[in-house]
Amino acid sequence: MKQYLKLDKWNIIEEDFQLHQHEISESIFSIGNGYMGQRANFEEAYSGPSLQGSYMAGVYYPDKTRVGWWKNGYPEYFAKVLNSTNWIGINIDIDGQPLDLATCTVKDFSRVLNMKEGTLSRSFIAELEGGKEVRVESLRFVSMTRHEIGAIRYAVTPLNFSGTLIVTPYLDGDVQNKDSNYEEKFWAEVSKEFGENDAALTIKTKKLDFHLTSVMKFEISKNGEALTFEDEQIEKEKYVGSRVQIQAAENEQIVIYKYVANVTSRDFGFGQLVDAARGALQSAVEAGFQELHKEQIQAWADKWRDSDIVIEGDVAAQQAIRFNIFQLNQTYSGEDDRLNIGPKGFTGEKYGGSTYWDTEAYCLPFYLSTADSSIARNLLIYRYKHLEKAKENARKLGFTKGALYPMVTMNGEECHNEWEITFEEIHRNGAIAYAVYNYVNYTGDFDYLGQYGLEVLAEIARFWEERVNYVPAKDQYVMLGVTGPNEYENNVNNNWYTNRIASWTMEYTLEVLEYLRENEPSRYHELVEKMHLTTDETEKWHEIIDKMYYPYDPEREVFLQQDGFLDKDLTPVKDLDPKHLPLNQNWSWDRILRSAYIKQADVLQGLFFLGDRYDVATKKRNFDFYEPLTVHESSLSPCVHSIMACELGYKEKAYEMYLRTSRLDLDNYNNDTEDGCHTTSMAGTWMSVVHGFGGLKVKDGVLQLNPFNPGHWKSFSFKVMFRGSRLKVTVGEHDVIVANESEVPADINVYGKDYTVGGMGNVKVAH
Amino acid sequence: MKQYLKLDKWNIIEEDFQLHQHEISESIFSIGNGYMGQRANFEEAYSGPSLQGSYMAGVYYPDKTRVGWWKNGYPEYFAKVLNSTNWIGINIDIDGQPLDLATCTVKDFSRVLNMKEGTLSRSFIAELEGGKEVRVESLRFVSMTRHEIGAIRYAVTPLNFSGTLIVTPYLDGDVQNKDSNYEEKFWAEVSKEFGENDAALTIKTKKLDFHLTSVMKFEISKNGEALTFEDEQIEKEKYVGSRVQIQAAENEQIVIYKYVANVTSRDFGFGQLVDAARGALQSAVEAGFQELHKEQIQAWADKWRDSDIVIEGDVAAQQAIRFNIFQLNQTYSGEDDRLNIGPKGFTGEKYGGSTYWDTEAYCLPFYLSTADSSIARNLLIYRYKHLEKAKENARKLGFTKGALYPMVTMNGEECHNEWEITFEEIHRNGAIAYAVYNYVNYTGDFDYLGQYGLEVLAEIARFWEERVNYVPAKDQYVMLGVTGPNEYENNVNNNWYTNRIASWTMEYTLEVLEYLRENEPSRYHELVEKMHLTTDETEKWHEIIDKMYYPYDPEREVFLQQDGFLDKDLTPVKDLDPKHLPLNQNWSWDRILRSAYIKQADVLQGLFFLGDRYDVATKKRNFDFYEPLTVHESSLSPCVHSIMACELGYKEKAYEMYLRTSRLDLDNYNNDTEDGCHTTSMAGTWMSVVHGFGGLKVKDGVLQLNPFNPGHWKSFSFKVMFRGSRLKVTVGEHDVIVANESEVPADINVYGKDYTVGGMGNVKVAH
Repeated sequence: MKQYLKLDKWNIIEEDFQLHQHEISESIFSIGNGYMGQRANFEEAYSGPSLQGSYMAGVYYPDKTRVGWWKNGYPEYFAKVLNSTNWIGINIDIDGQPLDLATCTVKDFSRVLNMKEGTLSRSFIAELEGGKEVRVESLRFVSMTRHEIGAIRYAVTPLNFSGTLIVTPYLDGDVQNKDSNYEEKFWAEVSKEFGENDAALTIKTKKLDFHLTSVMKFEISKNGEALTFEDEQIEKEKYVGSRVQIQAAENEQIVIYKYVANVTSRDFGFGQLVDAARGALQSAVEAGFQELHKEQIQAWADKWRDSDIVIEGDVAAQQAIRFNIFQLNQTYSGEDDRLNIGPKGFTGEKYGGSTYWDTEAYCLPFYLSTADSSIARNLLIYRYKHLEKAKENARKLGFTKGALYPMVTMNGEECHNEWEITFEEIHRNGAIAYAVYNYVNYTGDFDYLGQYGLEVLAEIARFWEERVNYVPAKDQYVMLGVTGPNEYENNVNNNWYTNRIASWTMEYTLEVLEYLRENEPSRYHELVEKMHLTTDETEKWHEIIDKMYYPYDPEREVFLQQDGFLDKDLTPVKDLDPKHLPLNQNWSWDRILRSAYIKQADVLQGLFFLGDRYDVATKKRNFDFYEPLTVHESSLSPCVHSIMACELGYKEKAYEMYLRTSRLDLDNYNNDTEDGCHTTSMAGTWMSVVHGFGGLKVKDGVLQLNPFNPGHWKSFSFKVMFRGSRLKVTVGEHDVIVANESEVPADINVYGKDYTVGGMGNVKVAH
Repeated sequence: MKQYLKLDKWNIIEEDFQLHQHEISESIFSIGNGYMGQRANFEEAYSGPSLQGSYMAGVYYPDKTRVGWWKNGYPEYFAKVLNSTNWIGINIDIDGQPLDLATCTVKDFSRVLNMKEGTLSRSFIAELEGGKEVRVESLRFVSMTRHEIGAIRYAVTPLNFSGTLIVTPYLDGDVQNKDSNYEEKFWAEVSKEFGENDAALTIKTKKLDFHLTSVMKFEISKNGEALTFEDEQIEKEKYVGSRVQIQAAENEQIVIYKYVANVTSRDFGFGQLVDAARGALQSAVEAGFQELHKEQIQAWADKWRDSDIVIEGDVAAQQAIRFNIFQLNQTYSGEDDRLNIGPKGFTGEKYGGSTYWDTEAYCLPFYLSTADSSIARNLLIYRYKHLEKAKENARKLGFTKGALYPMVTMNGEECHNEWEITFEEIHRNGAIAYAVYNYVNYTGDFDYLGQYGLEVLAEIARFWEERVNYVPAKDQYVMLGVTGPNEYENNVNNNWYTNRIASWTMEYTLEVLEYLRENEPSRYHELVEKMHLTTDETEKWHEIIDKMYYPYDPEREVFLQQDGFLDKDLTPVKDLDPKHLPLNQNWSWDRILRSAYIKQADVLQGLFFLGDRYDVATKKRNFDFYEPLTVHESSLSPCVHSIMACELGYKEKAYEMYLRTSRLDLDNYNNDTEDGCHTTSMAGTWMSVVHGFGGLKVKDGVLQLNPFNPGHWKSFSFKVMFRGSRLKVTVGEHDVIVANESEVPADINVYGKDYTVGGMGNVKVAH
């Protein structure tokens, strides 16, 4: 752990600039607005280690697959999140010396991510070779209200000299992805032009023909007064810039306001891009920096009103949970159903793709509880739109029917290329089915089932039907050759979780069919016909549900993660010499595989999803068996353990797991934050508070709260959207209140304090 | 299957040149001499599809590993067999038109691999654009007696015109490996020089600094008379050539004799290379082409005297077995213990590396039976020399002791990068131990055990000791997470073969220890001390041997390939729609994995190796269970099945499997011969005849023969080195003769025909 950031309730603060932490900070201080995002790269030139990253949501590159040994079924490409035009750049030259924090002496450095207002600011004094000092203060944001707009205020003040500043704002499309498989550049130039007061650059991806147009405009003031200036236009391959020479006297502040609009061919025709960008830019410039800033503050105030979690008495926890919520809100706004939530959001390029099962398993509950239901619905519709591709994917792997959703995707096609994951980590299909249940259960939007839900469910059920095989000697169905959520086991037989979620999918699909037959008979018949759904199939599902094999240890009375699990050495993690941890950095892959150590919740993931089907004693036995073997080397692991620990009353474990998940990036637990933040796991952190300590469950449209005192906080409060017809709050195992929404009183005693609930409820739990 | 080659007892013959078969022929018609080898590329320029390949044994390139997802323990590089200086090149220009078989009309084409004499010849008439015709006749070989020397006789005759020929013999080091991971060229130029009558080129590998010097000299004759000529020297990057202009009248035959010496820094210091090459070349040129050719014929006659197999009544089978023997003899001559037998020999670059377990499991028996025991001994010493690297490899994977030999290697270091193979296909260690047993058993060279054998055995036994784990509930040792010989199963638990060969290794190691303690007590103590071998260890080996777990089906009374095998769908291959075959081209990898289909002998491999420990009934039950599930999609599979089928009296199956293995490349069964021949599996073909139909077994120094009539041949005969003190020949289950070597009579009746046996025995079996 490297705790170099200051604790603060609303801000992430870095003081004392150090080169080796810069890439970590570039990730953590990233800003985004759901439409585009930007790592915390410096505006001015920087020659130190840096991961340049400007990302436009939904713009990607199909990078030719790179593997050592090809396996049948591998996809031809891996979709890469695309580093795009560097639009923040403003080079500063001071009397012939470039301003570059890697080469000058940096004093009074501070970098602040203001999460309340959605801005990134920086200030420092740079001492150049020869002793000249300048103070720099910058502030930037990507607008939450005008998605195409980024705005920068960049102020330079000579402190101990008078001299010549050369300021060069630019747009540079000659950028590269660090993770390019063959060190290829993905962008080609389309056009560049200088307008009267602006410069425009259009580039396009070498494959798929995504076009990106960026237009920039800038103003300069000296000591608060607008400056008129001559600029020299600079053109290079995929680059436009404007060079301005300014005489600055000692202590005169030169401020550059740079406005950029980025628009893409996802939203406009090729011929309209420059005009569209200029239009957006013009209106932003007319509003002016201050007004844009004000809009930003207001937009974020709205976000916080609906999604904030307040923790009293623990600044580290407060800062962490806000950081997680902030990242989620700036990664996905839910307005565009072609978009999804990439594992690194807009903070890095690693893992490529945009959509993993993380979305359904971890992110959905956050959006369900904190935003309008249309947002969560869009996440579901995204998968509905990919159904045909998921069917193709199943065909490609040899299935005659059903759908297998991809492990990683941008457009519905599988991008992943590691057989034990791509072909075998098929439980992801279950999470996509579970998301339908989760959504309908939470929102009561039963219409969704007939409109979209059933088709997805039935095609997944068909996949499971064909994926299992019957073993006459056992009179049971087994599922061979899978990888469960715990990726420290590959190609196992009868992963309990996968068998369980497969069987559950078939159950729920049959339930939904029954619901539609009764409640929407004409739509039911329409769908049955459209899908050529036969009674042979549904009877087969019943049979598989009845005869599914689940590995089980009758002695310990626990579900077995997979066949043969008990043949492993079951030494708990705590008895392992700590030098071995983390295993993924210290052990060879085969040693990890044959060990019993668990990367992330697997059996416990199932007990969490299907929590209402298992009693506390069962959960406890399984938790007590698996938790000691779990190393939590996936960012998605601690939250599930934290939530279950709350339910089981394991206060210390719940809190330990919460800290681990919530400050994962801020404290760089996994030693990889420089690659980007663990954006999707941040939703798990939110779940730890709301589902874990808050005890939120939803069952049959009833919102149930059973708050649990984490024991380290004075109080905590959170918001949840309350859409069901009833609310039920229990403390421990006793019901405290059951009320219709309209009947909920304004103040109700829980742990001696109050909470209120309404269309958006605010739950406060205190000592 | 593409049978485009003519059947012939001693030659491989291609008539009727077709572009799409050229790359296949380039593989099949390859020539080599154990020191270097050359695909059947054309001497003249060729613009059609071609895999250029000139290889120098032991000269390789550590190509940076390319994987999609890195796993701890992967090696940094994959050692590539290195395409080296093209030394065969002779460009021909006819009145301004290049001779290029891809662009002219080809008539009367014939390409002949003369296996009896070890030469490749070619003749054709080429009609150029405009109608000019030339006849070309070429003959080339790499000398079996002068390893550095390659010689070419290339004759051109204008048939219907008189004109100007421009002839350009050259050496071109600007070549590339097709399988280069990052499209990098591996060679850099060191020097080039023109001598009085020769041209020399030295290149070096960009990593590891292997130097290769090639020197060429050529002579030209016209109608049999030496021609004096002026040549223009051509120098390019990594290239030297000599351009000669010749006036040729209609029907005048122009013959170019090109002699090349290739020497490497494996054998000479950097400063000596050019002189060494010139020396070798000078002596070859002085001998002259005819004399070199005579030497070649004699050298191959010697090889055939010791290793030929004669099959009467089946030309296809005769041609095939000779092709297999020819390839083996030209790939490895056994004189250099730094060399080994690459999976493609000198016929292609695929699979890189040089040494797989193929060497021990398949190749060793061929060299044991057909060559001096020093050859087989060198193969063993090769591994002894790599013992320290194998120990390092085990440490790298987290083992505290023991040795894990690499899956693929050039210098003892692991090169392979696919976790399920690299880390898990550890049965290779067993084959290396078995080879020691096999060698000592066959040759009676017990001295080898104390000199080299024990150290290898004990370090492998130590590896197994640490690789198994004890399961208290079973009171047994298991081995988790392995891949057996059947690579259509990955990461399985308790692969029967691996458990069995592991346990056998420990048994044999204990036996060898006991032998040394009794027979070489001082060496025994020296070794125990050197290896710090403790009684704790040997006792542990005894315990593991006693308590090893072997998966077994009590109902069918068969060994189970691995835990859970019976949960699979056991539909036999014959009931599968043939459209699915071969599975590796039609099924996704996950479907292959979860099927019961077997790529190559696995349980049966164990029953073959340890054949004297299992009765015929056991072998039969297992063969009857596994054969129907085996798809033989490894070239190493059919031979084991063929041998077992012989023992079990399954005549048709034995013959079917024999044909499949013996004509694998000639008939391009696996549709991949263009990448190179399946050189190591050729030794399996030889085993099919000698161990299968010949019934050769060796037990306690007794050579046992139990010939089996394959039923499709008039007769067959083979040679075996006979070194043991006794010979035992049985027919069926009855002993026919048991005799000391000196007592073996000259003619003994087997199937009514005769055989003789001596220091080199000739066994003939006839109807």
